[in-house]
Amino acid sequence: MIFGTGKTPSQIATLLTELGHDGVTVMATRIAPEVASEVLVAVPAARYLDGPRMVVLGPPPDPTQGRGTIAVLSAGTADIPIAEEAAVTAELDGNRVARIFDVGVAGLHRLLAHRETVEAAEVLVVVAGMDGVLPTVVAGLFSRPVIAVPTSVGYGASMGGIAALLTMLNSCATGVAVVNIDNGFGAGRMASLLNRVRT
Amino acid sequence: MIFGTGKTPSQIATLLTELGHDGVTVMATRIAPEVASEVLVAVPAARYLDGPRMVVLGPPPDPTQGRGTIAVLSAGTADIPIAEEAAVTAELDGNRVARIFDVGVAGLHRLLAHRETVEAAEVLVVVAGMDGVLPTVVAGLFSRPVIAVPTSVGYGASMGGIAALLTMLNSCATGVAVVNIDNGFGAGRMASLLNRVRT
Amino acid sequence: MIFGTGKTPSQIATLLTELGHDGVTVMATRIAPEVASEVLVAVPAARYLDGPRMVVLGPPPDPTQGRGTIAVLSAGTADIPIAEEAAVTAELDGNRVARIFDVGVAGLHRLLAHRETVEAAEVLVVVAGMDGVLPTVVAGLFSRPVIAVPTSVGYGASMGGIAALLTMLNSCATGVAVVNIDNGFGAGRMASLLNRVRT
Amino acid sequence: MIFGTGKTPSQIATLLTELGHDGVTVMATRIAPEVASEVLVAVPAARYLDGPRMVVLGPPPDPTQGRGTIAVLSAGTADIPIAEEAAVTAELDGNRVARIFDVGVAGLHRLLAHRETVEAAEVLVVVAGMDGVLPTVVAGLFSRPVIAVPTSVGYGASMGGIAALLTMLNSCATGVAVVNIDNGFGAGRMASLLNRVRT
Amino acid sequence: MIFGTGKTPSQIATLLTELGHDGVTVMATRIAPEVASEVLVAVPAARYLDGPRMVVLGPPPDPTQGRGTIAVLSAGTADIPIAEEAAVTAELDGNRVARIFDVGVAGLHRLLAHRETVEAAEVLVVVAGMDGVLPTVVAGLFSRPVIAVPTSVGYGASMGGIAALLTMLNSCATGVAVVNIDNGFGAGRMASLLNRVRT
Amino acid sequence: MIFGTGKTPSQIATLLTELGHDGVTVMATRIAPEVASEVLVAVPAARYLDGPRMVVLGPPPDPTQGRGTIAVLSAGTADIPIAEEAAVTAELDGNRVARIFDVGVAGLHRLLAHRETVEAAEVLVVVAGMDGVLPTVVAGLFSRPVIAVPTSVGYGASMGGIAALLTMLNSCATGVAVVNIDNGFGAGRMASLLNRVRT
Amino acid sequence: MIFGTGKTPSQIATLLTELGHDGVTVMATRIAPEVASEVLVAVPAARYLDGPRMVVLGPPPDPTQGRGTIAVLSAGTADIPIAEEAAVTAELDGNRVARIFDVGVAGLHRLLAHRETVEAAEVLVVVAGMDGVLPTVVAGLFSRPVIAVPTSVGYGASMGGIAALLTMLNSCATGVAVVNIDNGFGAGRMASLLNRVRT
Amino acid sequence: MIFGTGKTPSQIATLLTELGHDGVTVMATRIAPEVASEVLVAVPAARYLDGPRMVVLGPPPDPTQGRGTIAVLSAGTADIPIAEEAAVTAELDGNRVARIFDVGVAGLHRLLAHRETVEAAEVLVVVAGMDGVLPTVVAGLFSRPVIAVPTSVGYGASMGGIAALLTMLNSCATGVAVVNIDNGFGAGRMASLLNRVRT
Repeated sequence: MIFGTGKTPSQIATLLTELGHDGVTVMATRIAPEVASEVLVAVPAARYLDGPRMVVLGPPPDPTQGRGTIAVLSAGTADIPIAEEAAVTAELDGNRVARIFDVGVAGLHRLLAHRETVEAAEVLVVVAGMDGVLPTVVAGLFSRPVIAVPTSVGYGASMGGIAALLTMLNSCATGVAVVNIDNGFGAGRMASLLNRVRT
Repeated sequence: MIFGTGKTPSQIATLLTELGHDGVTVMATRIAPEVASEVLVAVPAARYLDGPRMVVLGPPPDPTQGRGTIAVLSAGTADIPIAEEAAVTAELDGNRVARIFDVGVAGLHRLLAHRETVEAAEVLVVVAGMDGVLPTVVAGLFSRPVIAVPTSVGYGASMGGIAALLTMLNSCATGVAVVNIDNGFGAGRMASLLNRVRT
Repeated sequence: MIFGTGKTPSQIATLLTELGHDGVTVMATRIAPEVASEVLVAVPAARYLDGPRMVVLGPPPDPTQGRGTIAVLSAGTADIPIAEEAAVTAELDGNRVARIFDVGVAGLHRLLAHRETVEAAEVLVVVAGMDGVLPTVVAGLFSRPVIAVPTSVGYGASMGGIAALLTMLNSCATGVAVVNIDNGFGAGRMASLLNRVRT
Repeated sequence: MIFGTGKTPSQIATLLTELGHDGVTVMATRIAPEVASEVLVAVPAARYLDGPRMVVLGPPPDPTQGRGTIAVLSAGTADIPIAEEAAVTAELDGNRVARIFDVGVAGLHRLLAHRETVEAAEVLVVVAGMDGVLPTVVAGLFSRPVIAVPTSVGYGASMGGIAALLTMLNSCATGVAVVNIDNGFGAGRMASLLNRVRT
Repeated sequence: MIFGTGKTPSQIATLLTELGHDGVTVMATRIAPEVASEVLVAVPAARYLDGPRMVVLGPPPDPTQGRGTIAVLSAGTADIPIAEEAAVTAELDGNRVARIFDVGVAGLHRLLAHRETVEAAEVLVVVAGMDGVLPTVVAGLFSRPVIAVPTSVGYGASMGGIAALLTMLNSCATGVAVVNIDNGFGAGRMASLLNRVRT
Repeated sequence: MIFGTGKTPSQIATLLTELGHDGVTVMATRIAPEVASEVLVAVPAARYLDGPRMVVLGPPPDPTQGRGTIAVLSAGTADIPIAEEAAVTAELDGNRVARIFDVGVAGLHRLLAHRETVEAAEVLVVVAGMDGVLPTVVAGLFSRPVIAVPTSVGYGASMGGIAALLTMLNSCATGVAVVNIDNGFGAGRMASLLNRVRT
Repeated sequence: MIFGTGKTPSQIATLLTELGHDGVTVMATRIAPEVASEVLVAVPAARYLDGPRMVVLGPPPDPTQGRGTIAVLSAGTADIPIAEEAAVTAELDGNRVARIFDVGVAGLHRLLAHRETVEAAEVLVVVAGMDGVLPTVVAGLFSRPVIAVPTSVGYGASMGGIAALLTMLNSCATGVAVVNIDNGFGAGRMASLLNRVRT
Repeated sequence: MIFGTGKTPSQIATLLTELGHDGVTVMATRIAPEVASEVLVAVPAARYLDGPRMVVLGPPPDPTQGRGTIAVLSAGTADIPIAEEAAVTAELDGNRVARIFDVGVAGLHRLLAHRETVEAAEVLVVVAGMDGVLPTVVAGLFSRPVIAVPTSVGYGASMGGIAALLTMLNSCATGVAVVNIDNGFGAGRMASLLNRVRT
């Protein structure tokens, strides 16, 4: 995996080519559209996902590695790119992923409508900015473990996501662990590791 | 009202006597039991409320000043003293108060069981420590305005209530305003002011 | 209501059209002039308010919903856009609004000249950046409840509005509750909720 | 589970008796020895674990619920009470637990000596104060998912565990998620949830 | 001047004797009553001022050094010890001092009653905790320079005086400069330096 | 005085014209060169000072108001614009000003070479970024009162001037009071107020 | 040495020429490529190093001043510019420098492959962003003193390098001292001073 | 070396005996006098140093390991225990140590009186609390490398030593590296490592 921030298009293209030589699926995160355009010229076999802002090279694997499904939930519309980063990361690791977006606590019925999918999932990734309340509510309602992802969405006293991060770390609900602000990739990879069948 | 922290029993007794001379009801907040004992020796007409840790002098007023009821909700057991400080303050201002305690989001059904009382209230005071999630959930479920009170209950990254304070300030729900950490008195007085009939 | 930050003109236009279909009045906040121009091309029935930087679709409602008037006060010239966001929000909710701007504490007589309007209001929204002193002074001088709005106006140790926020949370005056930095919309909506006639 | 901080011995005793009535195993965390003595007088069937400072009532369950073993690693001697809190919590949930303590990065060979146990574990709980480096090193060396627990052990710029918490949140290694400072209970419960066999 | 915190009674007694040998007036600040008792046994010529918690050795100088009067204002009752530390320091430097205490902004008329004394002063020391609003209001009302002293009086989001400190640093009023939290001595000495007649 | 940040050229021009109508000298601070160009087209009688980035309208007053000289000292080259803002402000208030720039503590002899000018000054304004050490060293070497101005010059752990601000607030030297980060105007006006002859 | 941030190309060119007049080797740090182009037009004898973003004038000295070698290690690819700033600074001071880059703890074997070079070095400069773990691991594995350099590489809870800085300050390993975030120059100069032969 | 905080006397005694079995010199830091008394009963061969609050077991080594002298400087009286911790640590490592205490910048001549000793030292340890200014002044005056130690001495905005730490990290002087607040042991050991003759 290539962290795109601060890298030039040619550096990203070189890394994609090197790491993806044998048909291995490689992804680069945090790629702006204009950077992606240049990368795709250099690596025509790659493709750009503008939701999670990722460039991917290599075939999508069969979703056969996991014990179950990974559900990715998110609160606001602005949290979707990070939620997609988590979801795509988990899919590229070979997991089945269920996306449940725009289920912020201002409309709790929308969340409750997905009860079955959530309870059936092996592990949950829950993404929220601003007040960061969603992971606590999800962990309170359901009995599945939650990887919580604060996002930098917000303003003023959200302090770039610190407020949401603190909410999640102080969750009174059982079964919540937290990753860095905006770290969709890390949450997706962690969920993937937890869902893996050991042999 | 007398803020008790850092005052000696004799200072508190003097203030109670001075302010309460004409049958006005006076309260002193944040009074430890051992301080209260000494105060009551000097001012035998006063009484001690060990829940909210307040000393009160003067008769409880008739609950006739407000347009409606003030509902005080709290999340954890450890938040009750602050919730009681808010409730007693509102009562001493002549309001009818409904107490709805121990309704943290880990057991959402307990909160939903009080739906009628909450919707009937004129204004809500919602008290929570640790993740500070409850005011957002209450404001999302009900259409009543919320005065949110963060408490210093918690440890580690709760940073003495700063985490709960930030959660409440960043609430995505509509109709939430916030007072200082552990400021039950301020919330009760604000609710009282909002509930007052103007003539 | 649509929070405009981070949304494209076409996303905003779509949301306005969807939410405002039946003559409901809809507003979008934090819209830069150049974004507004594009939105208005797509939704010609909408109008742009450049003070509060809002796009509004639908008729202004009659100011008939509130029990009384909402007074919006602000300290410095640079705080006016946030004060306008609060005022317009309250007006679009059907409230009568009195604007009292540029009454910072450096010229206390300007504030005192509005005593009658302030005392007659049902609830006050008080907006201030830098030292955030105005809500405390207003709550000390008048007996009306204050929704305090810190703004990000300032530099250096104002830390993007954190200093003003802390001043307001620590107010020694009675009857002050606080919303997030620059959250004029939230204050206007809270004031509107508090001013509403219940039936 | 009962969070002991701020509760009186009689409150704790009452809660233990109530929650543990039907032979359910109940634990209370953060119990000082002198508090425990009083609790045990009131609830003679309970026992005190002075390592993790817990009071437990009810039989230890058979370690039969988990898919595999939970390994608990810790860095310094002073981190052991939190590590024990995590380990005992997991054991009381019916898991097999492997304890690997005092494996701070100043003596990396001590950690490497446990390679087999670590790689065989289903999930790792890694506890560290001060610089909080151990979870990153463990996640870099082994392919197992890590629940990282910062502790408040340290002084000066450790700021009560904030430094260790930040180190863990910013880990460059894959497969690390973090709980609150000193939250051994939360990490043990999360690990237990992740290790559970679903039917 | 001797900063008493962290020094033993015998260390303080020795320093007083050494520094005060030739009839020079010496003071030690932040001396608890029980420490003072021991110091006075060793240095019987010294005296204890329990308001500002200072031990003084040597005669009070004639108030003849200054160009004018130094006025010391304070907001709440709990701020008085720091205000007294400033006042006594200035007096021991040979200045005339006017004390104007308990003039917090919740009762602005109390402050305005002292208008003449304040306007006549050469320099003002203004002491306030919690919201730290008083120096701004004073500098807005009067044309005299203000040395502002934040105190650690407060709770929750006052963060040990940081909130009051930030309010003062961000003051919109002209003619305000700030010293450290609780630094009454520093403010008194600075005012003394500013009031000094140069020859 | 007009604080230029966030104002348009036409707003600044209007304010200059309004405030400067009767030959009063008016200044606007924090004016970028391109803004100044537009302002000068609208107000040809004004002039731009590119050191302190100020626009001034009206005649420079005779330096006759002060009791003595105000000395403005600064540490690094990058601190000069703020030092100039303080110096020009004091001059426009009618004070004699001595500029002593580039006397950072890395070359203490440069500072000592100005001993006479410094000791002769009525009050000192000392400007420094990064470590903010200069005011303490100046107050330790000389017996004149210091208005300390932290600047935002620095990077990393300077945190936009917070580090320099804290250094100055904690100064062990006597006779130091502090203004906001980059607040050259405030320091110049405070010095001017302190230097004023009262009649 | 010239700190380039905030200086114009012509200011940098003038300083280079002044300081480098007698064949002394001079460097300017933090020079963007487009600034460097303009500087080189004015000072054709200078050269630009685009790795560490430095402009150097004067001959590279013989590496003969040091007692031994300075080894510069860095964790991630994005840390290399700061590591190069340290390395080039040390070389221009006449030291032999060994570069060991991309040896982050996620691949500990890469670091161990350089064991001999590291142990042979007189002093180590270790550069890392994000979690800032590398200096602790290096100091734990080897017996050489470490000058640790946190970088601003990271996002979210890295807070511009503060997280890495705190990790390094709290290092449990012996023999680690820390410089400011991104201060490659300072670390290189410190290492140079420590490596110098005294005569 | 044994970090004493949070360990019982019997734990410390056991560790001293284990680590010091073969005549190796062992030290335990941060030992309160009452703890030391108990330790010495159990380990009569040990001795207590009440300046640096250390217990030492084993003979003081000959000062023969270092290339030169280590000079330890400190600013205020309250900083001496930390300075002694550094000095004794270096001595127990076999170094010659020169102590230069109470040379704060308020009396610069006291520092300058030690010029020869300072310039002759191989490396300097400079200890200061409050404003943390001393290391910068020392590094500006002398050409020796400085290991800077911030202390927690101070109050208010010193925030437990954070202010002094930031001052030192932002030092404009060349040749300063910093250790954790109050970490005298770490500075002494680092200086010892830097002074060591390699063979």
